[in-house]
Parts: sequence; structure tokens; C-alpha cells
Amino acid sequence: MKIVLLGSGNVANHLGNLLYNSGQNIIEVYNKFDESGIVLSKKLNAKFINNISEINKNADLYIISVVDDFIEELVSELELENGIVVHTSGTKNMNILNKFENYGVFYPLQTFSRNTELDYSNIPFLLEANNKENLNLLKKFTKNFSENIFEINSEKRKIVHVSAVFACNFTNYMFSVSEAILAKNDISFDILKPLIQETINKAIKNSPKQSQTGPAKRKDLKLINEHLKLLEKDKDYQKIYGLISEAIIKDFN
Amino acid sequence: MKIVLLGSGNVANHLGNLLYNSGQNIIEVYNKFDESGIVLSKKLNAKFINNISEINKNADLYIISVVDDFIEELVSELELENGIVVHTSGTKNMNILNKFENYGVFYPLQTFSRNTELDYSNIPFLLEANNKENLNLLKKFTKNFSENIFEINSEKRKIVHVSAVFACNFTNYMFSVSEAILAKNDISFDILKPLIQETINKAIKNSPKQSQTGPAKRKDLKLINEHLKLLEKDKDYQKIYGLISEAIIKDFN
Repeated sequence: MKIVLLGSGNVANHLGNLLYNSGQNIIEVYNKFDESGIVLSKKLNAKFINNISEINKNADLYIISVVDDFIEELVSELELENGIVVHTSGTKNMNILNKFENYGVFYPLQTFSRNTELDYSNIPFLLEANNKENLNLLKKFTKNFSENIFEINSEKRKIVHVSAVFACNFTNYMFSVSEAILAKNDISFDILKPLIQETINKAIKNSPKQSQTGPAKRKDLKLINEHLKLLEKDKDYQKIYGLISEAIIKDFN
Repeated sequence: MKIVLLGSGNVANHLGNLLYNSGQNIIEVYNKFDESGIVLSKKLNAKFINNISEINKNADLYIISVVDDFIEELVSELELENGIVVHTSGTKNMNILNKFENYGVFYPLQTFSRNTELDYSNIPFLLEANNKENLNLLKKFTKNFSENIFEINSEKRKIVHVSAVFACNFTNYMFSVSEAILAKNDISFDILKPLIQETINKAIKNSPKQSQTGPAKRKDLKLINEHLKLLEKDKDYQKIYGLISEAIIKDFN
């Protein structure tokens, strides 16, 4: 399968590496701007294209991996004769690609940071296509590098995406708040690491709902108020503490 | 060292097992109410006591591991002739034990659930004592079963505790929200597990502040508003999504 990768940002980089390392044939990397596209195309042993009209019109798979807001503009400029076109967005509807004959979604559900290597074999891919044949094609393709494949339509993909914001981005922010609170008192974040590891172990092994502990779960209002007082100087953190504690109390009592 | 364990709840159970398995000599388990105390004392090969005046007055270490609100009442009834008395609370000041000659704090920073086995060797213990000699004694004792020892005074211990509520209890609640959102749409929580594992790996390896990703970090207001709309039917989750996103935007932009 001849693949064209459109985009050379964070996700495109990780995806490109994943495909390249699993032996896929990326023939071209497209980017309007030069630098990151040139670097990535060299890494992937692919041709660099920065004029969209020069993209090979007869590849088998076109992967659009650019920032959500740029997908539609890119699509409007892209003229092809063959192949299936997919985007990698968690929120954009599949139908923004319906000017093509064959299209779908190829969404890797993972948090990608620049310069962080991760376990690619375990990334869930959420797939969708405009017909069964294309879905099977995408599935077969994805099986080359992931065993974690889900057929999810555009509506449900949005739900997964918003739930991922809670499970990943907001979780990380909770860590960030605790790191900041500790730092102000010259205490290392290391002190919390075993606790964090165990929290995750329990949530993954059992279920989060079953694993809830802490003052709000126990409805220990006295302790909650002490903590709110302790956070008096960090109004933003105090507000978050209050709101989440309220929600936990409501859910568990 | 002869040890008396006062309490037989969740934390007392885990601590008792930890001490017993590391070869410590627990001579008595005290509990006013019978059942859980009897069960625990049998497990620890210790005598069960339910009348506080019958506790051995010449043990070396008394560990008070009861719900915070009961510590002071228990202390008022406890008459001893020897030994060092510690409590295991994350928030209570050490000084509530100052009727004794030798006292301190022995706080295991971990989330304990009933019926969950965990890696005891890795639990951080936050120690405090009324003098250097007692602190050294507690340190030496704790080294028998943990390599993760911190000297932390009562004020700082409270800070650690509130930061642990963010890092553990609130984190788990974020998972719980995502689990609920997915369940309403018949999607399994399993889909998020690789993402959660990677989120934790990054936060622990680098720092949470450096690992932040997501729409709020990028100040992607369009996507944030779409997500808020998606959560229209879950006002509580919507409110949490809004508040945390605001906080992230403020911290990162």
C-alpha cells in the first residue's frame, strides 16, 4: 500500500514513525510550510511535497493528520484519482471527507508529546469508513501495528474524545495542582508517586467507581472544610477542590 | 518491640498485615466493637482487647489507627506507663498525643481499599516525633518494611494530605466521570486504559506540568465549547469540564 501522509505536526510525527517502523510504505509527506515536513519526510524515507497539487494522485491511502481547523481547507484543495482518504481527528465528523469516493477515520486514542517515545503496540485505533469494504480495508491495514481496534461512528468518537479529556488531560491537571501545592511548601512530587501508581492500578483493575476513596467519598465535611481553609491562598485550586468534592458527595451519598 | 494496634478498620488492617508480614510482634489489637477487631487479632496472632483499661501498659509502641474524629476520645481514655504512642492520620496534629511522654506520627501515604492487596514495600511513611530520639526510633522501626521514609512536621503533612486528595481521589473521580460518560453510550472503559497508562507514565517520568496536553492547554475554545455542548445533559460534569478547562487555560496561557 502506497501511503501519503498530510501533515507533520505532533500526531503526524508519531503516526509516521509507527507506520514506518511497522514496515509501511510512506511515499510522500505533505506540508505547506517547510521545516517540520522536510525533517519528517527524511525520517520516513519519503518524498517531501509542499505544493498540494503535486501530491501523487494514485496512492492507496491518504492520511490527513493536521490540526482540526485546517482539515476542511486542506480537503477543499485536495484532488485525487484513487485511494481512500482518512483523517485522524477525535472530533471532526467523517463526512467532511465526502467529496472523495472512499473515506474514513483513523483516530489514534493516545496522548502524544513531542520527544516522548511510547508503546505503539498498545494504542487503540478508532476506525470508521463510508462503506463496509473501506472499513475492512482500514481494519486490515491497522492490524499491522495495533491489536486494539474499535469500530466507532463519528457521534460516539466525540463521546470517547470528551471522556478522554477527563481521563487524561484533567487527570494530569490534578497531578499538576498537587505538584504546585507541594512545590510551594518545598516538598517533592516524588512523595506522591507510589500513591498515584496505586490509584491507577486500582482504577484499571477494578473500576474507578468502585475504587473511590477520600474525604468526599466518606462525606467527611469537617476535613473537607479544613482542606478548603488550607487552600485559602489558592482560590482557583480551592474552587476546584470544592466543586469536585461536591460532585463526589453527590455521586456517592 | 512489642506493638499494640488500636483500631481494626481499613488502614489498621493494611498496617497490621504489613507489620505482621515483616515479622513484627503485635501483641494486642484493641477495638471497642467486637467483630472486625476479633478477625484482625486472629490474623495477626495477637490478643483481642475491647476494654481500653485492659491494654498492656508496658508495650514499646502503640499505633492508634482509628478514624480521625475518634483519636482524641481514645487518647483521653488511654493510660500507659511506657512506650511511644503514634497516630496514623494525615491531618491530625501530633500534639493531640502530648499527654504521653513519647509520641509521634506514623502516616502511611497510600490509598487503602478493603480486599485490595498492594505493594507494601513501596509505601511512603511520613514520620514525626516529639524528640530526636523518638524520631530515630520510629525511623529504625519503619525501615524494617519501607525504604520510602520522610520526616515531615504536622503542618507539612496536612499539605501533603490535601495534595494527595487531588492526585488520588480527584484523579480517580475523573476516571469515574469518563467511565460514566462512556457507559451511557455503551462504550467500554477499556478503550481508555492505554491512554490512562501513558498519562501516568508521562506525569511520573517527566513532570505533570510538562506533560499537559489537550484542548484547554492549546486554548482551543471552539473544541471546548463543542465538548460543553456534548455534556449538556450532565450539568455536573459540564461544570467540572468548564472549571478545570478555565484553570488549565489560565495556568498555561
